[in-house]
Amino acid sequence: MSLKVGVIGTGMIGQDHIRRLTQVLSGVAVTAVADISRERAEAAAPEGAAVFDDPKALIASDTVDAVVICSWGPAHEEQLLACIDAGKPVFCEKPMVTSEDAALRVIEAETAFGRRLVQVGFMRRFDADYRRLKAVIDTGSLGAPLMYKSVHRNASVPEGLYTSDMPLNDTLVHDADISRWLLSDEVTGVEVRLPRRSTVGKDLRDPTIVLLHCASGAIVIVEISVNIAYGYDIRGEVSCETGVAALPNRPATVVSDQFGIRQAIPEDWRERFIEAYDQEFREWIVAAGQGTATGPSAWDGYASTLVADAALRAVDSGGHEVISMIEKPALYA
Amino acid sequence: MSLKVGVIGTGMIGQDHIRRLTQVLSGVAVTAVADISRERAEAAAPEGAAVFDDPKALIASDTVDAVVICSWGPAHEEQLLACIDAGKPVFCEKPMVTSEDAALRVIEAETAFGRRLVQVGFMRRFDADYRRLKAVIDTGSLGAPLMYKSVHRNASVPEGLYTSDMPLNDTLVHDADISRWLLSDEVTGVEVRLPRRSTVGKDLRDPTIVLLHCASGAIVIVEISVNIAYGYDIRGEVSCETGVAALPNRPATVVSDQFGIRQAIPEDWRERFIEAYDQEFREWIVAAGQGTATGPSAWDGYASTLVADAALRAVDSGGHEVISMIEKPALYA
Amino acid sequence: MSLKVGVIGTGMIGQDHIRRLTQVLSGVAVTAVADISRERAEAAAPEGAAVFDDPKALIASDTVDAVVICSWGPAHEEQLLACIDAGKPVFCEKPMVTSEDAALRVIEAETAFGRRLVQVGFMRRFDADYRRLKAVIDTGSLGAPLMYKSVHRNASVPEGLYTSDMPLNDTLVHDADISRWLLSDEVTGVEVRLPRRSTVGKDLRDPTIVLLHCASGAIVIVEISVNIAYGYDIRGEVSCETGVAALPNRPATVVSDQFGIRQAIPEDWRERFIEAYDQEFREWIVAAGQGTATGPSAWDGYASTLVADAALRAVDSGGHEVISMIEKPALYA
Amino acid sequence: MSLKVGVIGTGMIGQDHIRRLTQVLSGVAVTAVADISRERAEAAAPEGAAVFDDPKALIASDTVDAVVICSWGPAHEEQLLACIDAGKPVFCEKPMVTSEDAALRVIEAETAFGRRLVQVGFMRRFDADYRRLKAVIDTGSLGAPLMYKSVHRNASVPEGLYTSDMPLNDTLVHDADISRWLLSDEVTGVEVRLPRRSTVGKDLRDPTIVLLHCASGAIVIVEISVNIAYGYDIRGEVSCETGVAALPNRPATVVSDQFGIRQAIPEDWRERFIEAYDQEFREWIVAAGQGTATGPSAWDGYASTLVADAALRAVDSGGHEVISMIEKPALYA
Repeated sequence: MSLKVGVIGTGMIGQDHIRRLTQVLSGVAVTAVADISRERAEAAAPEGAAVFDDPKALIASDTVDAVVICSWGPAHEEQLLACIDAGKPVFCEKPMVTSEDAALRVIEAETAFGRRLVQVGFMRRFDADYRRLKAVIDTGSLGAPLMYKSVHRNASVPEGLYTSDMPLNDTLVHDADISRWLLSDEVTGVEVRLPRRSTVGKDLRDPTIVLLHCASGAIVIVEISVNIAYGYDIRGEVSCETGVAALPNRPATVVSDQFGIRQAIPEDWRERFIEAYDQEFREWIVAAGQGTATGPSAWDGYASTLVADAALRAVDSGGHEVISMIEKPALYA
Repeated sequence: MSLKVGVIGTGMIGQDHIRRLTQVLSGVAVTAVADISRERAEAAAPEGAAVFDDPKALIASDTVDAVVICSWGPAHEEQLLACIDAGKPVFCEKPMVTSEDAALRVIEAETAFGRRLVQVGFMRRFDADYRRLKAVIDTGSLGAPLMYKSVHRNASVPEGLYTSDMPLNDTLVHDADISRWLLSDEVTGVEVRLPRRSTVGKDLRDPTIVLLHCASGAIVIVEISVNIAYGYDIRGEVSCETGVAALPNRPATVVSDQFGIRQAIPEDWRERFIEAYDQEFREWIVAAGQGTATGPSAWDGYASTLVADAALRAVDSGGHEVISMIEKPALYA
Repeated sequence: MSLKVGVIGTGMIGQDHIRRLTQVLSGVAVTAVADISRERAEAAAPEGAAVFDDPKALIASDTVDAVVICSWGPAHEEQLLACIDAGKPVFCEKPMVTSEDAALRVIEAETAFGRRLVQVGFMRRFDADYRRLKAVIDTGSLGAPLMYKSVHRNASVPEGLYTSDMPLNDTLVHDADISRWLLSDEVTGVEVRLPRRSTVGKDLRDPTIVLLHCASGAIVIVEISVNIAYGYDIRGEVSCETGVAALPNRPATVVSDQFGIRQAIPEDWRERFIEAYDQEFREWIVAAGQGTATGPSAWDGYASTLVADAALRAVDSGGHEVISMIEKPALYA
Repeated sequence: MSLKVGVIGTGMIGQDHIRRLTQVLSGVAVTAVADISRERAEAAAPEGAAVFDDPKALIASDTVDAVVICSWGPAHEEQLLACIDAGKPVFCEKPMVTSEDAALRVIEAETAFGRRLVQVGFMRRFDADYRRLKAVIDTGSLGAPLMYKSVHRNASVPEGLYTSDMPLNDTLVHDADISRWLLSDEVTGVEVRLPRRSTVGKDLRDPTIVLLHCASGAIVIVEISVNIAYGYDIRGEVSCETGVAALPNRPATVVSDQFGIRQAIPEDWRERFIEAYDQEFREWIVAAGQGTATGPSAWDGYASTLVADAALRAVDSGGHEVISMIEKPALYA
């Protein structure tokens, strides 16, 4: 009784999810694929899977119980709405959509349908380190969370392709989502500060400091450095009233040699989050098998869109950009 | 084209492997189970799986491509020989067998068959921490390994059920196997030293220090403490000519509170090694699907039997108990 | 040929310095003390030391080569000017003075004298951890410093006595001074953000986030929490272009017990910085013996006064408060 | 009222102690020096100190309240006995003496005198890390200590000068003394095991494993590696009934760069133990000023001599060499 999954978009991330669904996880089969390039779709399709030119046809097909969207961002809205219309659970890679209005249309459709169907690809929530951190905070033993420091360091980004807006509209969304989730809070305002610029990335605006003001009053300080050379280093520390909780070092061999006592740092996001991606889909499969979704929701996709938009405005204004959200539908309570 | 697996023995560990094979891993189906208690077998059998009273009938059945043996130790030899006779890949929980002669009979049968079929359940070799540690040693960048310290601490063992021989014939096998594997070496002699006894376990002989002398001259120092209360703490450190490499702390949240700056320690072996068990079977499924085995072999089962036997002798003699092995068959090279 | 030191102010900190100068350090003798309470002065005076009612008489006395000022802040200016007038080296506890104008008068007097005489009590610069951190930054091997995070956590502050301005005009000076020193930079602007308030300190405004904007463009993020209960925890991390350097955990025994694997955290500033205080005076004695001063200068005292003033303004304004300094006299180059 | 100290032996370690006594510590003056080389003595003597050719004349001199012995080992006995005869407190560098008989003669003389006068130079007991470790053990919160692992790694030893007996009669004494002190125990037997030899030291027998059997039944496992290249790395871990306590990493900057997340390791014993040496003399000065001694005693010197002798015998015998001590005089209780 495997879940029959159709995958839309067979680029790098789509191919990786097909590998995951067919070779790593149980209880699932990839029965259909679609891509704007039929050639790429055929190359990526597992044996026996149907190949579609039209994503909507894939979504409508009887061979598909649930959908994974890995197409490019601007195509997501239409595909999500089609999935909701078909009543089929759907996993959508981030960004969920590319505008606030589009996010609201997805939310409206899903609330009208009356049951959650959409899971957005914020994989950090499935990472064991983050889950343990949230579990500590949620016990309340350290008191209320007052500040959160989120450090997001990439070894490098491709020169020219990764532009100065991307720390805010591409990279920041992970920190924004995990902050909201860890603190069980909403972001109500955003400030951006630009420190002395790194000379590594030439004309790139890097690093970036972002302050997220939360509804509770908690403040999140995000440090984004995208060309820091030494590795992919993701850190998080929650300061509470009577204690502090932080992500640990990654579990690397402790070597003592001429360079000191040391542990290797992950090279990239694949190495760091591969198990989170597996777990993300493991849970999605269970929920989708029951006709619904349980992970990061369309509401979370909406919230992250608002934060990115506000951050971009804050760079221009230099000020505190307020975020105002619609009232939260009961579906996302 | 899933691998059809028959499971013999549906006690606690057998049930856990059935869960793993049916709910966690892909490319595999449990199609048959057997147990000396038919009632227990029926309770454990997944939907559609055949239930056998006779393990040999399960092994011979067409519904079974490969076998997982979780029966009690004394039954292993006969079941392993039946699997080899049937040419079916088999995963066997430790102890592989309960005597040196039995181990030699399994080796003889497998070498006569001419292809590896047997994988023994030393799951530590599949643990990511140990794999990274071995990778560091194997680069040779720290020079030759000269000493290895293996620390094996259990929070507690059941009073009365866990007897004074068990640190040596039950617990030690993991340290012995992982030492041989990390150092790419064989154990040629064993000494046991008994420190001041812990009062926690009452009449139990605990803790235990074991020295394993290796063919290369490297010495392994094993500390076994089975009632140390604070957690399940597995440590390993390899001292090489120009550096040292060690297992890291487990990745737990770093909490700063009234007890200091601290990380939780695993409670038991399930928590510590659950991912290693998954990976152990993931790789077994791939090899078994190709009609063979690639993990810890019958040779490794034989070696660990010899170490346990020598350790028990060393307690009585107080001396250095020599181990002599047969010449290693080319099959295990 | 011991340095003869006169101590002004024999309260808690004065008594501690007298203990240090008489019992811990070599090459120094306390030959005179003064206090507004003659009784307290007499109780604190080492055997043979002269007791003065008038601090200026102490400064002028032949029995005194150099002066340590531990009186309350508003008295510092007059005493510093008297020391400079007498050409005697002087160690002055922080705050050096209590207004920008006073700081400028001290600088003017010292530059007119033409040789450094004043050392201000920023003891962190003498702490071994901070010195090693600065040494790493100063090699340049990690590239230019772009951001610095300074974490200042007190277990508790006395209710009622420690008021809401004190995180900014009392506590922050340490972070400001150490930031300037670590980064070899000046602070040119200050912002303050007030996160969700801790309920521990009742009406106290706590915690506090301060952003220090530096001349180089580097941004310092200071977290001040003064009632965090779990200990006195001082942290610092410099993010550079191609790497990061941070203060280590303090060297406490690594205990594995029912609370996890853990290290104790210092209880208070005495425990954390006692060796830094010793070293601070060790180096002061050497310089004072040569008729001059080498540690944190009147310029550093001036700079920290400006930061505190700007931080207080920033709380009220909610904005970015600019700092403008006079041109730096060559004496402080 | 400074303590007037005479220093016998002005080689490297003697010069370092003169520096310490004159430039670092308070309450002490070096008033006399002696050396077999008058030229070296004169060069090392502080201004105003008397220079003696005859150590006994120095000991007898009125200019000397207490003595520091830094001559070579074979000269210690006679000098110690002269100090005891003169009733003067004496600090003696290790080895206290070079034979069991000599140790007994020192003990006999001191017990006859009736008050402790001798402190032996086991500086590790004054190291803050070891003191905190002992404090944890001594609370009893982890239960009784059952095993202790002492790791003694030198970056390198001078080829030719450092011979194969020296790990046992020179290096081991530190581990033996600190083990006795940490565990509040006596060593009753010694075994030595020689692992695969490091190729770094050519013909040197290295590394060495030593097992110390204690009166309580506790077993100490010492690992000595003297050419491990990467640094001077001293480790210690006490396994108790319900927990474990260990020395921490040394407090070095935490650097994240292309070599990982790392901390530097001390280069040599000076860097590692410089503060312990200072503290050792700080406490000696206090006790000597009261006409007695409080640190490691002649009894401790005797015990360490016995361990070194037994270890050398154990290399030859390959067996368990028993140590038998005289009854402990009440003076050392």
